[in-house]
Amino acid sequence: MTRTWQDIAKAKQTALLDSIPPEWRVPTDIMPPDSQLDVTGFPRDSGFFTKDELKYTTAKIPEILQQIHSKAWKAVDVAQAFSKRAAVCHQLTNCLSETLFPEALERAKFLDDHLQKTGEPIGPLHGLPVSLKDNFNIIGKDSTLGFVSWVGVPATYNTVLVDVLLKAGAVLYVKTNVPTAMMIAESVNNTFGRTVNPLNRKLTSGGSSGGESALIAFGGSVLGVGTDIGGSLRIPAACTGIFTLRPSFGRFPTANAKSGLAGQEAVNSVNGPMARTLDDIEFFAKNVVNSEPWKLDPKCLPISWRPVDVGRKLRLGVIWNDGIVVPTPPVRRALKHAVEKLQEAGHEIVDWEPELHQEAMDLLAQFFVADGAKSVRDILAPVDEPFREEMLPYAQAKEIGVHEMWQLQAKRSKLCKDYLDRWSQAGLDGILCPTTPFASVEHGKFKHVGYTGVFNILDYSAVSFPSGIYADSELDKAETGIKTLSQMDAQIQAEYNAGAVHGMPVSLQLIASRLEEEKAVAMTRVVLEGLGVAA
Amino acid sequence: MTRTWQDIAKAKQTALLDSIPPEWRVPTDIMPPDSQLDVTGFPRDSGFFTKDELKYTTAKIPEILQQIHSKAWKAVDVAQAFSKRAAVCHQLTNCLSETLFPEALERAKFLDDHLQKTGEPIGPLHGLPVSLKDNFNIIGKDSTLGFVSWVGVPATYNTVLVDVLLKAGAVLYVKTNVPTAMMIAESVNNTFGRTVNPLNRKLTSGGSSGGESALIAFGGSVLGVGTDIGGSLRIPAACTGIFTLRPSFGRFPTANAKSGLAGQEAVNSVNGPMARTLDDIEFFAKNVVNSEPWKLDPKCLPISWRPVDVGRKLRLGVIWNDGIVVPTPPVRRALKHAVEKLQEAGHEIVDWEPELHQEAMDLLAQFFVADGAKSVRDILAPVDEPFREEMLPYAQAKEIGVHEMWQLQAKRSKLCKDYLDRWSQAGLDGILCPTTPFASVEHGKFKHVGYTGVFNILDYSAVSFPSGIYADSELDKAETGIKTLSQMDAQIQAEYNAGAVHGMPVSLQLIASRLEEEKAVAMTRVVLEGLGVAA
Repeated sequence: MTRTWQDIAKAKQTALLDSIPPEWRVPTDIMPPDSQLDVTGFPRDSGFFTKDELKYTTAKIPEILQQIHSKAWKAVDVAQAFSKRAAVCHQLTNCLSETLFPEALERAKFLDDHLQKTGEPIGPLHGLPVSLKDNFNIIGKDSTLGFVSWVGVPATYNTVLVDVLLKAGAVLYVKTNVPTAMMIAESVNNTFGRTVNPLNRKLTSGGSSGGESALIAFGGSVLGVGTDIGGSLRIPAACTGIFTLRPSFGRFPTANAKSGLAGQEAVNSVNGPMARTLDDIEFFAKNVVNSEPWKLDPKCLPISWRPVDVGRKLRLGVIWNDGIVVPTPPVRRALKHAVEKLQEAGHEIVDWEPELHQEAMDLLAQFFVADGAKSVRDILAPVDEPFREEMLPYAQAKEIGVHEMWQLQAKRSKLCKDYLDRWSQAGLDGILCPTTPFASVEHGKFKHVGYTGVFNILDYSAVSFPSGIYADSELDKAETGIKTLSQMDAQIQAEYNAGAVHGMPVSLQLIASRLEEEKAVAMTRVVLEGLGVAA
Repeated sequence: MTRTWQDIAKAKQTALLDSIPPEWRVPTDIMPPDSQLDVTGFPRDSGFFTKDELKYTTAKIPEILQQIHSKAWKAVDVAQAFSKRAAVCHQLTNCLSETLFPEALERAKFLDDHLQKTGEPIGPLHGLPVSLKDNFNIIGKDSTLGFVSWVGVPATYNTVLVDVLLKAGAVLYVKTNVPTAMMIAESVNNTFGRTVNPLNRKLTSGGSSGGESALIAFGGSVLGVGTDIGGSLRIPAACTGIFTLRPSFGRFPTANAKSGLAGQEAVNSVNGPMARTLDDIEFFAKNVVNSEPWKLDPKCLPISWRPVDVGRKLRLGVIWNDGIVVPTPPVRRALKHAVEKLQEAGHEIVDWEPELHQEAMDLLAQFFVADGAKSVRDILAPVDEPFREEMLPYAQAKEIGVHEMWQLQAKRSKLCKDYLDRWSQAGLDGILCPTTPFASVEHGKFKHVGYTGVFNILDYSAVSFPSGIYADSELDKAETGIKTLSQMDAQIQAEYNAGAVHGMPVSLQLIASRLEEEKAVAMTRVVLEGLGVAA
């Protein structure tokens, strides 16, 4: 008898839960009730974690590495603690897609033995647990991207980034959930269901790297890697108040990762780190780039991590709204606050009109479905998996011919040239803008990836960072009489629920030009200092 | 009455000839007869050029710049000499498409005045005449690419490279002929007709940058810029025994140049210098890259011209044949000679099997016509210009959909990864191979761009250089009994005419990995030393 896609999905979910050792299953008596929205306090408050486990999983990367490399901590203990915390996070937020717990402990033990024997770490990440988004292939593990037909089809090779991380000494222990094909801004699919936000489980942790953001915000990972083709790193980072760097294409290796739109190159997906601090983001960037990944990935650029001095005074353009959607009240307040603080600190802030943003988003939308969603259909078909409602643009897409595609690509090239000319003429260091219109949002209500997607079309480097401002139902009441910029804007304004997002962190985005990752990070450091927020 | 495409072409040719001042027209009594094949001696032997004109036009770039910047030579005299020599070259080889003689003299005069007044050159190329392939837009000049419908449609903006060169102080004085759409390996089109090789006018100067190669080989330019999407810099350089560098995409600016396949990005066209010495090639590369073109061209990479030390001993793979076509006898001899000399000099030479070359060429052919040649048809249509017979693959092409295109692109990405892995595992510094199967060839007989095209698919950096070996009808007789590798190979072997190419220089190609332009140049210098050939 043929199993239905529902059967396969259910069995996969069960197998995933079964991979969690009994001692890491949260006992019923201390399991937070569904009504408890914020579960981030669980590790500290539940008594389910030992003091050492909490110590390991709340340390920053430099401390973890220093302690392991000095043999004060064992890599195997650190790996065990993060594995347990990730397993618990999964039970509370449904954030994982694959586990590698036994492999991680074995690997960590190997690293401890190596250090004991040789006195030398095997690489700069020796012993560091790193979590990965589901699309990074690891030999023997599925990379379903949420597709049911890809359940039980384990990878036969590693993504280049996996080899880079392993060579550097990392310990891989979990892969994290994504939306179907990684093409929805919330992390929901027919195989694993929905990942929720550990800061408020009625809200989304964003997408498509929303398993990662949930895991990191919960403390189940100190360093994760996600991907971004329209905002998939920055949106989940913003929904959970963590840091991320979206690099320009070619900076970090992407070869041999899995995609739902294989061969699509009009706009390139990129990898990037997600973490609780900017320092940890830079740690990843520096180490990956300096491993010379261009010798393994033909699309990687031979550009080392370069020292950069951005000076003390920045000249930033600010985008108050992108001409399509006005940010919701907490985001508007956070941006206003940031601009005022930065001006006080002596930075020069100029208004930056969102010229070409609508055209960029129109192009992005057309690129994604230019194959008439044949690629996605071909993956859904073997098990009759239906399109989810969030994938409506795919369900309705019509394939275009290559000639029309060339016209779109020519338009994109012109747009990039025009934007760069304006940027160069304005003498900008960067752009400050919202990451999304939201301080997260209720499930099913995330709309508009315009604040992130435009910089995928431009391929600019971008950091999303927590602004230090939190949504406040008193300060951020829905306002009436705001002019709506579009139908989508009207819908977002109508749906805005100040009470629902109360207490959520608000993130902002700092944009540098193409392949200016070092500058994006350095400028963010200066901005955080101006805002009085920790890096 | 509507003019036919033939009328328009004829008028354009006449206007081009009319743009040559009477005093630069070659008098009938000294005009070489059609039967005279080698016309490169004309400037020196005819008495038509003054001693100074010969001095200016035979100097190398450093001398020209040093003399102009020290005010020993006037930029206007140098510009005049090169303009005259280019005008004469056109009368003997049909190499030009546009002239800017009055503009060049005015510009040179401005530069002389500026230097006189300020004591400073305006940039590192102050006063240097630079010739450009037809597709570089210059405001007010046509960029027909050989299409009749584009006659009389002057550019309204400059190509970014033109702005870069002007800012650096260059003097632009001619644009040079190309084949239709720049997609034929000989330079022939319905607007201007055919460019011939000044070393032997029965032979092709190659394509698509074959106006440039003819002009430079004749001494009508000391530095030209061409483009390359399948060999269009290297083939013409090889047919005329000059140097060129095909950079990886993103190294030199390409924005705002004209293309017959606008928006095609599966394989990217690149710009590169063509010159009589390797030093002059490096001079261009260094100055263009160090002008920071990434601030003007969004596709340019922020990578400065980097110092590189390739050491004294190279490890090179040698491709004796590409598995598709065996090089003709003079090329085989030149390659064998080079390998022997390099081994004598202590370099390590290993055989490099042409794995994936056929697949790369299949992909390249499919990419070029993926739009069903709609782009080309749309340019031919307004004047009912017919497809030339050389464009048969275009005339017969059927458009594919984007889904199929994505599959081809995914195949290309895998191919690039597999090739890089093999390269890295072999620990190669570079590959030595033929540039083309020919030491040039009779008109209409150029076939097979496989030795160049594979490196467009891979986007590797490559230098084509004269090997110091010349075709010799005694030494390079057609051999019988050579196993043919393909139908095309059989045809090339059957058509090979040792007598026709007697005396022609043979070029070889040195390949470095992607974005290793500095290394490609530096290795070529080492190889030339090994061969005892001047750089």
